[in-house]
Amino acid sequence: MTKNNSRERVVSGMRPTGKLHLGHYHGVLKNWLTLQNQYDCFFFIADWHGLTTEYSSPQGIAGSRREILADWLAVGLDPKKATIFVQSDVKEHAELHLLLSMIVPVPWLERVPSYQEMQQELTTKDLSTYGFLGYPLLQTADIILYNANKVPVGVDQVPHIELSREIVRRFNSLYGPLFVEPKPLLTEAPKLLGMDRRKMSKSYDNCLTLSDSAATIEKKVLSAITDPDRKRREDPGNPDVCLIFDYHKLHSEKETIQKIDRECRSAAIGCVEDKKMMAATINKFLDPIRKKREEWLGQTDRMDELLGDGARRARAVAQEMMEKVRKAMKI
Amino acid sequence: MTKNNSRERVVSGMRPTGKLHLGHYHGVLKNWLTLQNQYDCFFFIADWHGLTTEYSSPQGIAGSRREILADWLAVGLDPKKATIFVQSDVKEHAELHLLLSMIVPVPWLERVPSYQEMQQELTTKDLSTYGFLGYPLLQTADIILYNANKVPVGVDQVPHIELSREIVRRFNSLYGPLFVEPKPLLTEAPKLLGMDRRKMSKSYDNCLTLSDSAATIEKKVLSAITDPDRKRREDPGNPDVCLIFDYHKLHSEKETIQKIDRECRSAAIGCVEDKKMMAATINKFLDPIRKKREEWLGQTDRMDELLGDGARRARAVAQEMMEKVRKAMKI
Repeated sequence: MTKNNSRERVVSGMRPTGKLHLGHYHGVLKNWLTLQNQYDCFFFIADWHGLTTEYSSPQGIAGSRREILADWLAVGLDPKKATIFVQSDVKEHAELHLLLSMIVPVPWLERVPSYQEMQQELTTKDLSTYGFLGYPLLQTADIILYNANKVPVGVDQVPHIELSREIVRRFNSLYGPLFVEPKPLLTEAPKLLGMDRRKMSKSYDNCLTLSDSAATIEKKVLSAITDPDRKRREDPGNPDVCLIFDYHKLHSEKETIQKIDRECRSAAIGCVEDKKMMAATINKFLDPIRKKREEWLGQTDRMDELLGDGARRARAVAQEMMEKVRKAMKI
Repeated sequence: MTKNNSRERVVSGMRPTGKLHLGHYHGVLKNWLTLQNQYDCFFFIADWHGLTTEYSSPQGIAGSRREILADWLAVGLDPKKATIFVQSDVKEHAELHLLLSMIVPVPWLERVPSYQEMQQELTTKDLSTYGFLGYPLLQTADIILYNANKVPVGVDQVPHIELSREIVRRFNSLYGPLFVEPKPLLTEAPKLLGMDRRKMSKSYDNCLTLSDSAATIEKKVLSAITDPDRKRREDPGNPDVCLIFDYHKLHSEKETIQKIDRECRSAAIGCVEDKKMMAATINKFLDPIRKKREEWLGQTDRMDELLGDGARRARAVAQEMMEKVRKAMKI
């Protein structure tokens, strides 16, 4: 068990497929901010994973390294607490992926629920590739390369961790005990819709990104679809179906949330006023993040240094592990 | 196009799955000896490929690095002429394999004829693995990592090179022209059977290996099955169906071959005498190889140095290529 300290280890990555938005913040980053104080964390920009779906137009991937890092640093991820790096800077991920490929039956990968689902969902992309089939295997390599104890995932990702555990058991039974079985660390992902009530996604252009200016946030929020049944100002609304209310629940004070809930239902407050309040609250939250983000983007050398340093730290752990793997596999 | 000199480049590898035998010599090594004088050759010990079929008992792989190198050097492969290295020492093979996996449809791999055939043939092994499915992709990475112009193959391996060419075309059309399409360099593999008339194979224990002692060679050859229809010494034989005659054709003088052909058909020569002649001829051929082999095996440091130096030379080319690949793929 490779451990530099007594804390348990957590590994998690994020695919660089566009600007980070509030969905990423509430679904992932907020959780990472807590984890970096409790665990020995390895957070990485999963650029190779980005290629599994974006291989035919990978323009965004390289350019977004610094963008993503700036976002991470701006929200408070701390390279002194967590090891922050880019996946492709640590070639051992590819080596372990290749070695694990030798012992993993194809049907194990075909059975991963998201494999069929994503192929059906992303109909504009040809995802019948060998790399897309193997991406849960690459995830497994990402995790066990650092002998992670825990992996923060949403409930839909649990089958991936189950697969990782199955691969670990197979490896250990073939070559002797080496890897620990990673456990899922269930993360509650709050429901956050894009401004058009669809899933928040770059491809729908409906996101509130961490890098949007205050004016852009206001403009986007004002364009939002609230309660579709509230046709006129004087109609009472239903905050339970209003995406704006979901943001209030995450960003506003308790008293404000209760007040809006009440006044929306009684038509005491209109949607425009509500949206303006929400935009102001989001902007208040984003102001310091935007400021730090800009500061970081003005120091590209410093960011490259941070990523270089993170890669060195990750590589040291990864190389130690790969020596054990090669010895176990007698190669 | 990465070229250190004006000669065309050839890449070829050999899986380390046991001692090299005369089949390897006549089918592969003899050809390599010619190629190293005509081309810029990269010859590698394909230890990762060894795992595709030997993953459940990989004991032989690591140990056979030096054995194979000793065989190669003993027959006359020259590290001053060719770049000789171990695949797993150049991690870029794994990185390129991973990157190419993103653009290769699974059906392209399923269609490779040897995929189905080997699964049916090697029934004692579970070859339904992701790694086994992907091995022609790893071969492609091995080849195009060095932008090889030509790859020496037997006729049954031509579909693999066709696949490599298809992958190169897909890469170049997605990301711009980078790789050359490798061409097969058809190698005539002479028919050589094991002493029991089955295919020469480690698993049948019917091989004449390059490291067999003179006494072992004689014993093995004397046990060989010649013309099954020649029951008695006085029966005329048929050299066309005699495996011993195939060895004469490769190792004996023209006059001797003609004489044996004649005297076998007229029963002037018996099988035992014929086999003794053949064993002596093989031993005369193997004597200097065995001697050099032993000399090399006494200098393990020197061999490790040679492999280290070969890996450095290969890595220099591979890293230069990977920089171009990453740039092309914008990662």
